[in-house]
Amino acid sequence: MVSPSASVLPFRTVTIIGVGLIGGSLGLALRRRQLARRVVGVGRRQARLDRAVALGAIDAGTLSVASGVRDAELVVLATPVGAMVELAREAAQSVARGTLLTDVGSTKALLARELDALSAHGFRYVGSHPMAGSERQGVEEAQAGLFEGAVCFVTPTPHTEPRALAAVEELWQAVGARVRVLDPAKHDRLLAMASHLPHLVAAALVNAITPEALACVGPGFRDTTRVASGDPLLWADLCLQNRERLLDALGALEAQLRTLRRILDDGAHADLRAWLQSAKAVRDSHLHP
Amino acid sequence: MVSPSASVLPFRTVTIIGVGLIGGSLGLALRRRQLARRVVGVGRRQARLDRAVALGAIDAGTLSVASGVRDAELVVLATPVGAMVELAREAAQSVARGTLLTDVGSTKALLARELDALSAHGFRYVGSHPMAGSERQGVEEAQAGLFEGAVCFVTPTPHTEPRALAAVEELWQAVGARVRVLDPAKHDRLLAMASHLPHLVAAALVNAITPEALACVGPGFRDTTRVASGDPLLWADLCLQNRERLLDALGALEAQLRTLRRILDDGAHADLRAWLQSAKAVRDSHLHP
Repeated sequence: MVSPSASVLPFRTVTIIGVGLIGGSLGLALRRRQLARRVVGVGRRQARLDRAVALGAIDAGTLSVASGVRDAELVVLATPVGAMVELAREAAQSVARGTLLTDVGSTKALLARELDALSAHGFRYVGSHPMAGSERQGVEEAQAGLFEGAVCFVTPTPHTEPRALAAVEELWQAVGARVRVLDPAKHDRLLAMASHLPHLVAAALVNAITPEALACVGPGFRDTTRVASGDPLLWADLCLQNRERLLDALGALEAQLRTLRRILDDGAHADLRAWLQSAKAVRDSHLHP
Repeated sequence: MVSPSASVLPFRTVTIIGVGLIGGSLGLALRRRQLARRVVGVGRRQARLDRAVALGAIDAGTLSVASGVRDAELVVLATPVGAMVELAREAAQSVARGTLLTDVGSTKALLARELDALSAHGFRYVGSHPMAGSERQGVEEAQAGLFEGAVCFVTPTPHTEPRALAAVEELWQAVGARVRVLDPAKHDRLLAMASHLPHLVAAALVNAITPEALACVGPGFRDTTRVASGDPLLWADLCLQNRERLLDALGALEAQLRTLRRILDDGAHADLRAWLQSAKAVRDSHLHP
């Protein structure tokens, strides 16, 4: 935490690269709360940028990374993670020395490695991962309150400048998030199990079901597979960026499914009940606090 | 459908064995809509039955199956499925010849086999499976509107009397459910994939996660595992009653996870994106109609 006297808020120009659900919601939150004097959006289609302006998510939009970031005090990468490194390198050519850089990607280790290296080009990078969003996409779904009460991981490295870290923490706190500081590699290991694996399991359940059985689903299947309606590009990007940790998490799940198969083969009622009870106890104690 | 002139509604006495979330909601719905002149609850604890009376779910409660079912025109089994056959046999000793019997169990083939056989003792059995409820339990969670808009499978066999089938269809339609008639064995095959497997996968995800990763979960994990907070006894019962179909469904999921592991091992972005896109397309077309 920075002391109030050291506050960077409000930011002068904040440039958001990728004005979709997350980028758009951040823009809305910054503008509604007057946390930035000006919010610029960078995108690949002018019509979408115009829509973001009309919705109040940004003050202005541009297709040019160079002109979009030129006056930025803070640049936020809010594209699928697979596109972030290249965009950051492009942006680094045009920013003033000392410009803050963060991102909202769901993996952090690779970005920390690649984007820390841009400090030679003027960026001061600090990774962020707000645990917000939904299976829906696009600036039309953006909400100024999206980050309120959400956890936001902020992931400094040994190279991170303390004042840059403080500024990025302040950004997320100002839009309502609860900041948790975490090492990038540890973040990726924990999120593989907490987020990336459940996403892939949801997709596996949908890919396994027959059309006839799909016509018989109820609220259970609907909720269990909700995240499988998320953006395939975004999730393919981040799952591959985190694939080693994800393979470990998948191994832990496969071990549970082997246990389950053995219990079902044996018809062991007490074992199945204990296995289900264990899951219920863990889930209830953490998610129904 | 029976014609209006042949309607069995309102029922005289309906006896619900097991006054929890589902049994209690059915009682509330029957009483609020005046679909039964009297609703009797049978339970194992007087205090809970008194609570069900206080909440308006039943007119009266008793610990005795024999006295509870004596005047019933319709008996509804709403306990965990593992207890149903024994309770139905006990009830069969005390009912009038021709008494309707249904249940709300999530598996149907075994019940159809066992409960059809009670026709010699006076019951006319037709299986039901309302796709309603939640991970919560107990009559305190009961709602008169629980079945409104829900699908209710009704599962006749070659032995089912047509008028009994029509009466049970009428029951569920009267509390707002959309009735789908399905063969019991086919029901169990489809529900293994649509309901029982997702439940076990949710439990497997929770059992696989470390406490440290559990502290990092967001809405995705929360929704994907919601059903793992359900009643372990109830789910152990029904999963074992349906274990052969469930093992088939588990095999289909394991095949998807093997595909996933191969894609992750290869780091094949296009393949992962296509696999995720397939799941998204299937889910969106059926669950976001």
